Amino acid sequence: MHKRIVFIVLDGLGDEYIPQLKGTPLEYVSEELININKLVSRGLCGLLAPVSIGIPPSSDTAHLSMFGYDLAVEYPGRGVFEAYGEGLELKEGEVAFRFNLETVEKKGNHLIIRDRRAGRIEDPIAEKLIEDFKRVLKEHDLPVEIHHTVEHRGTLILKPRDGKLSPKISDMDPHEVGQPVLQSEPYEETPENELENAKRTADLINRIVRLSYEFLNDHELNKQRIAEGKPPGNIIVPRGAGMKTKLRSFSEKWGVKAAFVAGGPLYKGVARLIGMHEIPVPGATGKVKTNLKGKVEGVLKALDEGYDFVFLHIKGTDTLSHDKKSLEKALFIKKIDEHLEPLTELKDIVIGLTGDHSTSSLQGKHIGLPVPILFYTDIGGRPSGAKAFSEHNCAKYNNIGVIRGPDVMPLLMDLAGRMNEFGLRPSPKRVLYIGAFGRPLSL
Amino acid sequence: MHKRIVFIVLDGLGDEYIPQLKGTPLEYVSEELININKLVSRGLCGLLAPVSIGIPPSSDTAHLSMFGYDLAVEYPGRGVFEAYGEGLELKEGEVAFRFNLETVEKKGNHLIIRDRRAGRIEDPIAEKLIEDFKRVLKEHDLPVEIHHTVEHRGTLILKPRDGKLSPKISDMDPHEVGQPVLQSEPYEETPENELENAKRTADLINRIVRLSYEFLNDHELNKQRIAEGKPPGNIIVPRGAGMKTKLRSFSEKWGVKAAFVAGGPLYKGVARLIGMHEIPVPGATGKVKTNLKGKVEGVLKALDEGYDFVFLHIKGTDTLSHDKKSLEKALFIKKIDEHLEPLTELKDIVIGLTGDHSTSSLQGKHIGLPVPILFYTDIGGRPSGAKAFSEHNCAKYNNIGVIRGPDVMPLLMDLAGRMNEFGLRPSPKRVLYIGAFGRPLSL
Repeated sequence: MHKRIVFIVLDGLGDEYIPQLKGTPLEYVSEELININKLVSRGLCGLLAPVSIGIPPSSDTAHLSMFGYDLAVEYPGRGVFEAYGEGLELKEGEVAFRFNLETVEKKGNHLIIRDRRAGRIEDPIAEKLIEDFKRVLKEHDLPVEIHHTVEHRGTLILKPRDGKLSPKISDMDPHEVGQPVLQSEPYEETPENELENAKRTADLINRIVRLSYEFLNDHELNKQRIAEGKPPGNIIVPRGAGMKTKLRSFSEKWGVKAAFVAGGPLYKGVARLIGMHEIPVPGATGKVKTNLKGKVEGVLKALDEGYDFVFLHIKGTDTLSHDKKSLEKALFIKKIDEHLEPLTELKDIVIGLTGDHSTSSLQGKHIGLPVPILFYTDIGGRPSGAKAFSEHNCAKYNNIGVIRGPDVMPLLMDLAGRMNEFGLRPSPKRVLYIGAFGRPLSL
Repeated sequence: MHKRIVFIVLDGLGDEYIPQLKGTPLEYVSEELININKLVSRGLCGLLAPVSIGIPPSSDTAHLSMFGYDLAVEYPGRGVFEAYGEGLELKEGEVAFRFNLETVEKKGNHLIIRDRRAGRIEDPIAEKLIEDFKRVLKEHDLPVEIHHTVEHRGTLILKPRDGKLSPKISDMDPHEVGQPVLQSEPYEETPENELENAKRTADLINRIVRLSYEFLNDHELNKQRIAEGKPPGNIIVPRGAGMKTKLRSFSEKWGVKAAFVAGGPLYKGVARLIGMHEIPVPGATGKVKTNLKGKVEGVLKALDEGYDFVFLHIKGTDTLSHDKKSLEKALFIKKIDEHLEPLTELKDIVIGLTGDHSTSSLQGKHIGLPVPILFYTDIGGRPSGAKAFSEHNCAKYNNIGVIRGPDVMPLLMDLAGRMNEFGLRPSPKRVLYIGAFGRPLSL
């Protein structure tokens, strides 16, 4: 009997103690959760450190780790996921970046960051700024493709023309207001034979960023923003250089037919790159205002269509944490809970529910404390005794330990009856799941 | 003061929630256990994932891991343990397999498995089938030795004659009824210099299996079985190719004089191969009907004879789980408990009690959920507060965490006062135990 699996990630779910709430946002509403508490009451629970305890993971590394990929070898860099999230395709040798439209102020010879999101600049303004900047890049005949995505966000792709490129270069974004925009440089440990390519790539991106400031700082729309008291989007600041790597597909790795429901581009990028099938949901925005009902219906649709693993991603919990909106985060968790009822009524099902990391709504950033996690199955399993889902209860009733990212899929697959005994090998490939059969013997 | 150690493995002890029992089999009887509860009341407790959480281990890999061997480097393959369990010795260069006598049906050019145990074929029938097949192998002048062991089980040893052999080949048994017998092939990652040997080995075993079907399918005894409505044993299906590796003896690894009491051939094989001394016990069968009293007496005898580490293995818990007999498993645990009283009265003793893996009596197979484990010592240690031994209590009162296989021996040895401080090295060898002295300085 192989059960189907739903894996729900509430982005940045875990948190820390918030004085006004006398606990974490999740703890604040945990007793009021109806459906998540149904799941935890019939499930195992514990804590998850997606990368390692004390290490705050980025969303892309956390997801890749939970899906069973080896970050040391297989992580292609964030830019790649951003590009795929936008429906772009990378060709061999191209280097992709995520960038922000930011607000900087010139101090001497440096550019000091004043707002990392240019006041969460509105889509049409950002769109126009980037469109106009495209012309500048063309005039300078630079081998680059640039795309605006949502608000202050965008994707930039460098193309190999004057020699090979390399993603082994540092970020230009210091990730902190008051700091200068940084010069991109090759990683210290870049191997000799790649060093020249990395230098070439860093030079090119540094040049593009300088150009962006020169052009955008004088742009009419930015002058208008300043007049309106709004921070201008007067530079693009790239980070997460990445090059496409050969990732084994999720289906091949775990022997399941996998689909996903997500709104945020980064998560779509991760899921697309590992070959999950997309279930499009109108109004799934990756924002707090999203179509939760539609997303849960999307999961049911995927199961109906024969997918036996469905990944559901909800982003709003993380966004509210970054904006330090603890109470709103708590209420959003409650709202998500209200929409999960159909999933609690499924048969022959395993449901995992967790976050990709904790995000502190006190500090407004990712933190390295573990995330609560539950593993529900409608039959069997091992109920932990927890009656409500929270950081506190997942520690108190913990019956799986503090697990790491790579433990998540084996636990889900095993509860679904899909794991091979360690040591068995019915195929010449190193596979973990049942059904990985080799060639039949011919008479 | 170096205490003596008894390490008790109840095979497949852990389980999952069984609706009729309102818990696991162990949880069902946990309050009624007298002696095991004496141990847990004075001991540490926690959960054990012998390989890794979510990964269902085979019995041989789990034991090897708990005894402190590195599976990635030192696991010789199941066939080796099966051979040693039968009292066979492997010579250098030989490749050993475990095989089943199974029932297959010809479909086109392939052989579809109908019964993986040929109806748990009776010993005399299986014995005769294999004896007759030996003649066929001899007629074909094939470099192979074949042995029937118990019921549908047997061991097959390939000998290097026409070139070197390699165990880096896939199983022919898909482990699932309805699937075809598989062609054995070299592992994908087999290094170039071993590939030819692996191909040679795969070709040889594939040829033998084809021959076995041709011969056994027409055998009189099988025709008779079919006439009686019984599934014929009309093929041998090998798995777990293994070659003897140089395993450091358990005594040398941990600085103890080690003995074992076991009934099941696989466990005898593991213990023999790592150089533990066998304490034979009449009626210790490795089945549910075994001589529990005699086995416990065997442990006491070993201690009396000066062995300071005794491994006691009891198989019935796993067998009952595979047969989905939850209640019988619970009652068998209770029966084992009744026989352990003499061990609770020992002085200067450390006792570890656990399973090598969880086996679901709901699904009838190994699962990756952790196993409860206790570490008792008559003096010192750190009582966890648990008064009864169960999956639930080992999570609730857990005071060692979710440990892995390689943590078990250090914990036992340390409680027995037998571990060197990390960093100390009174011998040129990398040894962990106290008393590993090098050569005295000569003047």
